[in-house]
Amino acid sequence: MTAIRAYAAPSAGAPLEPFEYDPGPLGADQVEIRVESSGLCHSDVSMINDEWGLAQFPLVAGHEVVGTVVEAGANVTDVRVGQRVGLGWFSHACHHCDPCLSGDHNLCRSRGHTIVGRHGGFADRVRAQSTWVFPLPDGIDAISAGPLFCGGITVFNPLIQSGVKPTDRVGVVGIGGLGHLALQFLRAWGCEVTAFTSTGAKADEARRLGAHHVVDSRDPEALDAIAGTLDFLLVTVNVSLDWNRYLDTLAPRGTFHIVGAIPEPLDMEAFKVFFEQRRVTGSPVGSPHTTKLMLDFCARHGIKPQTEVFPMSRLNDAIAHLEAGKARYRVVLEADFA
Amino acid sequence: MTAIRAYAAPSAGAPLEPFEYDPGPLGADQVEIRVESSGLCHSDVSMINDEWGLAQFPLVAGHEVVGTVVEAGANVTDVRVGQRVGLGWFSHACHHCDPCLSGDHNLCRSRGHTIVGRHGGFADRVRAQSTWVFPLPDGIDAISAGPLFCGGITVFNPLIQSGVKPTDRVGVVGIGGLGHLALQFLRAWGCEVTAFTSTGAKADEARRLGAHHVVDSRDPEALDAIAGTLDFLLVTVNVSLDWNRYLDTLAPRGTFHIVGAIPEPLDMEAFKVFFEQRRVTGSPVGSPHTTKLMLDFCARHGIKPQTEVFPMSRLNDAIAHLEAGKARYRVVLEADFA
Repeated sequence: MTAIRAYAAPSAGAPLEPFEYDPGPLGADQVEIRVESSGLCHSDVSMINDEWGLAQFPLVAGHEVVGTVVEAGANVTDVRVGQRVGLGWFSHACHHCDPCLSGDHNLCRSRGHTIVGRHGGFADRVRAQSTWVFPLPDGIDAISAGPLFCGGITVFNPLIQSGVKPTDRVGVVGIGGLGHLALQFLRAWGCEVTAFTSTGAKADEARRLGAHHVVDSRDPEALDAIAGTLDFLLVTVNVSLDWNRYLDTLAPRGTFHIVGAIPEPLDMEAFKVFFEQRRVTGSPVGSPHTTKLMLDFCARHGIKPQTEVFPMSRLNDAIAHLEAGKARYRVVLEADFA
Repeated sequence: MTAIRAYAAPSAGAPLEPFEYDPGPLGADQVEIRVESSGLCHSDVSMINDEWGLAQFPLVAGHEVVGTVVEAGANVTDVRVGQRVGLGWFSHACHHCDPCLSGDHNLCRSRGHTIVGRHGGFADRVRAQSTWVFPLPDGIDAISAGPLFCGGITVFNPLIQSGVKPTDRVGVVGIGGLGHLALQFLRAWGCEVTAFTSTGAKADEARRLGAHHVVDSRDPEALDAIAGTLDFLLVTVNVSLDWNRYLDTLAPRGTFHIVGAIPEPLDMEAFKVFFEQRRVTGSPVGSPHTTKLMLDFCARHGIKPQTEVFPMSRLNDAIAHLEAGKARYRVVLEADFA
């Protein structure tokens, strides 16, 4: 058994530093992946800073992995050694609870998370239950694929779960790691797409990525001007905005869908929900089946994350770059262990 | 033209007093109903007290009407003079906007309300667009039917809109004018039904009305004991409870559905919505088509409001009875104009 080499936060908010650990015996339902690259998601930073009270230190973050399977447990039949695969936020499901039996393995009652209570992909190797390890189909660019496995599936899944239709008018709030993929998905989905961003410099890029319209997300008049028009609003930010005003942008029966870890209560008026028969919904990442649908959809439509590549040895610089709001649109760490 | 005799609030919160008005010419798409009875809904009291800022005084409330059609406008084809009918909260739809064309006349962009900007059913006669006037099918008890047209359809409609299934475990929060009908609907729907009430004395009646289980709605431990079990929660109250704890009673994919005019913001944690893929939804009353489905369902299953009858001349006493929390479960005013 060779130790796994990684970068870990020794304590909440501390800079990452080299760290080695012995992963123990490989589980019968697990595979081990040699990491080629790992995307940097805002959730990695939230875990490193222990914003959600879930972190255990030392913490190896990283949950948007692309790599090659180097070992497979005795019971693994769905992935083979030598395959190039992706791994995202979830890494375990029981396969026996009601959500699992319904195909909702991402809602499994004992689901495991790649970087909660275990070590993730900022490492030379990482392990996960084979259920959560997806061979890359032809047509998927491996270099940029990592962010699909958390950011991508998180914004693709709502289109499946809510039954978004190609005739729908859809808004995407926040054009970052998640939102820039949502724009591409929705344009290929056939929708009329509106991007909401507070960064004026992103307007042209939002249009290039698929938006028909761009609205200043912090301008009340711009929001009021489109009141009652949207069928679906995909909220990818993790800050609080004037949610009642956003509800007003929705047509009757419109859906306000949350995928971001907004820390404050939503503070919505009941009247704005029930009187126009609106819905407030949300979803966590996505199921294995939905992830496969997404990969096929990306391959068919040429959808890929727009990435900036840092060597993994410069992880702390990459985190600073993300926290400064400079990422366009997803930072990916390329493993460069000697 | 004979003046309509009614009981009106002369100003916000004032006792009702006799009032007459000239209704003018009957609209071509309207019918006039001679009122037999009119239910007393909490929304009547909210309008009389102008809690929503929508009232115009003098105000004639009353929007759960049963009576007989005495006149029909030139273009009316769906209701005939002499038919016994019901009328509820809505009284006008344009038939041309997108919601109307989708069958959602209760979401019409220019919908009219029976007691907003016009006079309602605490009167000897009342008028409405024929779309909103429903002949009572055989098997519906006319004496008690009035509350079906607001309270009833308000809690029946969510079962249709949300696709509640007979296999679902459903909770009803608040066992009053709306909730006591919801229990009957859900029991006949085939569901496992839990009643939430803060009134211990209602527990036995809740079981008789259809509940399999009764939970104290203000007991945190009782709520925690059923965490993660419900598929659908129908919230009929118009006061604020610990909504995050109620969200916790829902299983993954569970729905929290609002039909009550809760005045305070909902104050829900985003995490409790998205991480278990829950939904917060709401709906206003119901469409004409759904109202007809409800009437047939009531006739087939023997569902009827449990009422206390007051003569309309004692309206002020009836309001005091409702406001004291004594109604079991819906007060109905019988027209007794000389």
